[in-house]
Amino acid sequence: MAKNAFYAQSGGVTAVINATAAGVLKRARQYPEHFDTVYAGQHGILGALHENLIDTSHLAHETLTALEQCPGGAFGSCRYKLKSLEDNRAEYERLIEVFAAHDIQYFLYNGGGDSQDTAHKVSQIGQTMGHPIQCIGIPKTIDNDLAITDNCPGFGSVAKYIATSTIEASMDVMSMAATSTKVFILEVMGRHTGWIAASSALAQDTGLSAPHIILLPERPLDQPAFVNAVHKAVKQYGYCTIVAAEGVKDQSGNFLSETGNTDAFGHAQLGGMAPVLAQMVQNECGYKVHYAVADYLQRSARHLASKCDLDQAIALGQAAIDALVAGKNAIMPTIIRKSDTPYEWTIGEAPLGEVANIEKTLPDELIREDGMHVTEAAKHYFRPLIQGEAYPTFNNGLPAYAHHFSFVLAEKKLGPFTV
Amino acid sequence: MAKNAFYAQSGGVTAVINATAAGVLKRARQYPEHFDTVYAGQHGILGALHENLIDTSHLAHETLTALEQCPGGAFGSCRYKLKSLEDNRAEYERLIEVFAAHDIQYFLYNGGGDSQDTAHKVSQIGQTMGHPIQCIGIPKTIDNDLAITDNCPGFGSVAKYIATSTIEASMDVMSMAATSTKVFILEVMGRHTGWIAASSALAQDTGLSAPHIILLPERPLDQPAFVNAVHKAVKQYGYCTIVAAEGVKDQSGNFLSETGNTDAFGHAQLGGMAPVLAQMVQNECGYKVHYAVADYLQRSARHLASKCDLDQAIALGQAAIDALVAGKNAIMPTIIRKSDTPYEWTIGEAPLGEVANIEKTLPDELIREDGMHVTEAAKHYFRPLIQGEAYPTFNNGLPAYAHHFSFVLAEKKLGPFTV
Repeated sequence: MAKNAFYAQSGGVTAVINATAAGVLKRARQYPEHFDTVYAGQHGILGALHENLIDTSHLAHETLTALEQCPGGAFGSCRYKLKSLEDNRAEYERLIEVFAAHDIQYFLYNGGGDSQDTAHKVSQIGQTMGHPIQCIGIPKTIDNDLAITDNCPGFGSVAKYIATSTIEASMDVMSMAATSTKVFILEVMGRHTGWIAASSALAQDTGLSAPHIILLPERPLDQPAFVNAVHKAVKQYGYCTIVAAEGVKDQSGNFLSETGNTDAFGHAQLGGMAPVLAQMVQNECGYKVHYAVADYLQRSARHLASKCDLDQAIALGQAAIDALVAGKNAIMPTIIRKSDTPYEWTIGEAPLGEVANIEKTLPDELIREDGMHVTEAAKHYFRPLIQGEAYPTFNNGLPAYAHHFSFVLAEKKLGPFTV
Repeated sequence: MAKNAFYAQSGGVTAVINATAAGVLKRARQYPEHFDTVYAGQHGILGALHENLIDTSHLAHETLTALEQCPGGAFGSCRYKLKSLEDNRAEYERLIEVFAAHDIQYFLYNGGGDSQDTAHKVSQIGQTMGHPIQCIGIPKTIDNDLAITDNCPGFGSVAKYIATSTIEASMDVMSMAATSTKVFILEVMGRHTGWIAASSALAQDTGLSAPHIILLPERPLDQPAFVNAVHKAVKQYGYCTIVAAEGVKDQSGNFLSETGNTDAFGHAQLGGMAPVLAQMVQNECGYKVHYAVADYLQRSARHLASKCDLDQAIALGQAAIDALVAGKNAIMPTIIRKSDTPYEWTIGEAPLGEVANIEKTLPDELIREDGMHVTEAAKHYFRPLIQGEAYPTFNNGLPAYAHHFSFVLAEKKLGPFTV
């Protein structure tokens, strides 16, 4: 008998999370005997708590196809971590109450490690509250820090963007270095893990010496060694490209971005790795330095998405539906790497309890011994993930992304809830 | 009788300056009766002063075609402004000496306003020193601040990149704003003119409300009005995207990037508009804010070049050669806009004396009355310049840009020269 489903996007969005949504929604329509209405949470899990349920049956097939090309989170995402069952049981009970009121017996949660934990808890409490619900987590995070899965949708596209930008900016600096800027710093995301920064090493596949230095949160900055490495690169290649994760720390374990800068009024200054590092290079090395901060540009750059990433994002959405149809519960579909060359992958699964709240950092064997670059094994791992271009449709010189959908919300059946 | 030519790239490079070089070099080969060897300056004009002349006749036709796809300056650019004739006549005399030694009677200088001034002076001193030389300036600047020409090669591609990035990052923030970042700041280039920042307004062509605020060097920042505008956008749209030129000034005329930030040791901090503005939004508005600094990424993003820009970059290179063949001197080929819809353009010319050292700022009629956005006329002007995609070839997931060419230098005939 067909049941209703709830799908929500959680945490920082990516260039391909909407492609996963398209995979979910299109696949569910192929199983009318299993799926009646699929609701999407407006602003993620808050949509469930507030009973703001987008009725996706009103979305045309073409709209779902358009989603495959859109960065951002079409239904709205949120940074809202449910507390533990012990600390806020009321929230979990509210979820079950909303799900029961709308006959929702399938729960699909698209996010990172925290979100897998939420999905895990919802599956547990559903049982005990007498409203059994099948819960499937769907991986998504540009940080690539989920356990078990070979990689995470969103990451491959960021890696492609960062490696491409590293190449392009390095060719720029290379042309200018004789008389101007000699050092270029690219600050990338990654507060706790260095996967994104590390992936910039693929720029070297094109024969470039850049990036010359990669700074990772996994290794505290050794300032004298860093200064030496900058000098060495400038001496050897005429310029130095540095890709640095935002979460690089000093030897005392403090984020470099929080090393005490103050504005003219003595206020602690808003974080930023790159300005601090640029200052260090200028003071200690004496080179003219430029920096870029990729910030949201890197994770929303759908115009340069990896085809591999896009395919996997869609496939994992489809797999989540297949898992529900197969009666599975409390699992997250994963990517299994079957072969490197040629790259072959298939879908696997991991118990939610084994991916919840786990942050996979860069393993030692992917980090060069001096801690300021990666190994060949790292490039080998990254290479397949950026393969293929998946350009969006352009209209009038700009990507024709869909946004501002006319969503229809399900009629509310419950009173308001305060989060 | 065939003569030799000298071509050099000057100042900050662009995504399409190498396409101009390809236009120059390919076209010259079509006139063997006029052009013998075309030399390219290694590191711009320094290549002439140091007699480091790249003999481009060794470059295969395929290499020139590859140049059309490469960001950066393949021959090396330089930030080296020749002093005035009065202050350093020796440099001009050295140029003429080198040109005479290598039978160079054509001088092609590819750059911005300063470079057009240099070309102008070289044309004058050649006459007086008895080595007449035809001088042609070729426009190039992402800043779009050259007089007379409708626009400058390099600008259209930056505009396309910035407008696209504005769309993508805005869709990201829009999805997150309910519970997280509400304000996004994109710092773009433009120390003295706001053409690049202004072009981000094209993002609104896709139906987005973003960018909500555009800050230009042409208008000092009115902080209370700015804070109000941020509040208004957040209230009305849920989020606020700000695109700010690096050269925004405060009411006292000081660059916002130099408003006295110091690091923990009291050193004046390395410039940066975005961190200062982000701090202001956080302190005065209380919203969570993120910022990106596009820096070199914007001007090297050949992967997202405008086809219109690329076509014009090549055409201006060709036109420079045509001008030499036609016996012209001391002019710069320009773009003339013949029609807006459909966009039609042709090549014109401007006397070097009329473009030298002139910086064209955003005219008042393109700036909205409140100084924090642009007019419809501005969008109308920008729109054609970003049309069309011109993707580079990708190989193994990354742009297959050529770099590290094996250049052959002409044998030196003179002693060294100290600049």
